[in-house]
Amino acid sequence: MKLYDSTLAPNPRRVRIFMAEKGITCENIQVNIMEGENLDSDFLSINPRGLLPALVLDDGTVIDESVAICRYFEETCPEPPLMGTDAKSKAHIESRQRHMEFDGLSGAAEAFRNSFPGFSSRGMGGNVGTVNAIPALVDRGKNSLSRFYQSLDDHLGSAAYVAGDEFSIADITALCVVDFATFAARVPVPDACENVQRWHAEVSARPSASA
Amino acid sequence: MKLYDSTLAPNPRRVRIFMAEKGITCENIQVNIMEGENLDSDFLSINPRGLLPALVLDDGTVIDESVAICRYFEETCPEPPLMGTDAKSKAHIESRQRHMEFDGLSGAAEAFRNSFPGFSSRGMGGNVGTVNAIPALVDRGKNSLSRFYQSLDDHLGSAAYVAGDEFSIADITALCVVDFATFAARVPVPDACENVQRWHAEVSARPSASA
Repeated sequence: MKLYDSTLAPNPRRVRIFMAEKGITCENIQVNIMEGENLDSDFLSINPRGLLPALVLDDGTVIDESVAICRYFEETCPEPPLMGTDAKSKAHIESRQRHMEFDGLSGAAEAFRNSFPGFSSRGMGGNVGTVNAIPALVDRGKNSLSRFYQSLDDHLGSAAYVAGDEFSIADITALCVVDFATFAARVPVPDACENVQRWHAEVSARPSASA
Repeated sequence: MKLYDSTLAPNPRRVRIFMAEKGITCENIQVNIMEGENLDSDFLSINPRGLLPALVLDDGTVIDESVAICRYFEETCPEPPLMGTDAKSKAHIESRQRHMEFDGLSGAAEAFRNSFPGFSSRGMGGNVGTVNAIPALVDRGKNSLSRFYQSLDDHLGSAAYVAGDEFSIADITALCVVDFATFAARVPVPDACENVQRWHAEVSARPSASA
């Protein structure tokens, strides 16, 4: 089994943390997105969409999409559960995980991709040809992140974790969003969001966070 | 059990088709997005994010996010399976489902929301306050749809369905994307995409398509 990975990108990190929580290891192959290695024919022969991460099983099966890779590991290595244990908890965690993507990750990606000079003609990720950056998306993305932080703070005022009482894939996505928003989009957690600060310190202290 | 629904919107339709495939029925409450009923306090008390669909269980639990609602039904009513039956098929279908969202639904939504006059200050869906439309996203969305159609056509040249040999949630998302792209974003399936035309006619003939 091999994981095609890119250390600095938020999506591969989601999978690395998920694997670390379950104690799963495998061969790691680095693909440098900044230098466009994800658009080279070598990688496109693995994942024609040109996006990371991608998991290649021993039988040659390729699984792309972070959450789909996590699903594979949740099914093959159920302990500890990170995607719920019954119908309601599975649905709730999936819902919260998607909130973190749509409310947080999308905004951070908009703010970063449309302001980073190296991506001026790569306004969208992956194998999509030339897509010019749209400057108006920088502010839209930053505004999304402001709403995201406030909403997450409200939630964490009465819950230990993003999807309730237990650490889950929703926390993993949220952690990757916060760190990516801070370092790439330059929108850190506001000082007033004390619940997010508390939660962030806690999940960042887990050994998996450095995977 | 109650489904908060909006007939013309693509996301609630995904859930209606999923339910119809499994023979699940429940009370249906219409919320008119065009008139902004999804942003009224009545609906925000159900789903503070102001997005549809939302499912309310008999014990009062609210599940939002289309795919999370589908997950709940897949768990409580497994037949026929629409999200895979083992680790590899679950991961593959989840991956393909997400391709349909990111490559197709996002583009259709960008093209529609940023060109429809009634949404000039609602450039993003849900309870996000004023977000001005960004005209440059109309062409970006339409270009995404062109790539989406070509990629789907290539795939359907050697597979019956979006995720392989079996009808799945990935087909449901793709059907809703194609019909929404056609009628709302005005980007119909190109004549040259004969495989998409064949598949579209076939899945549209299923009784669930009119749910």
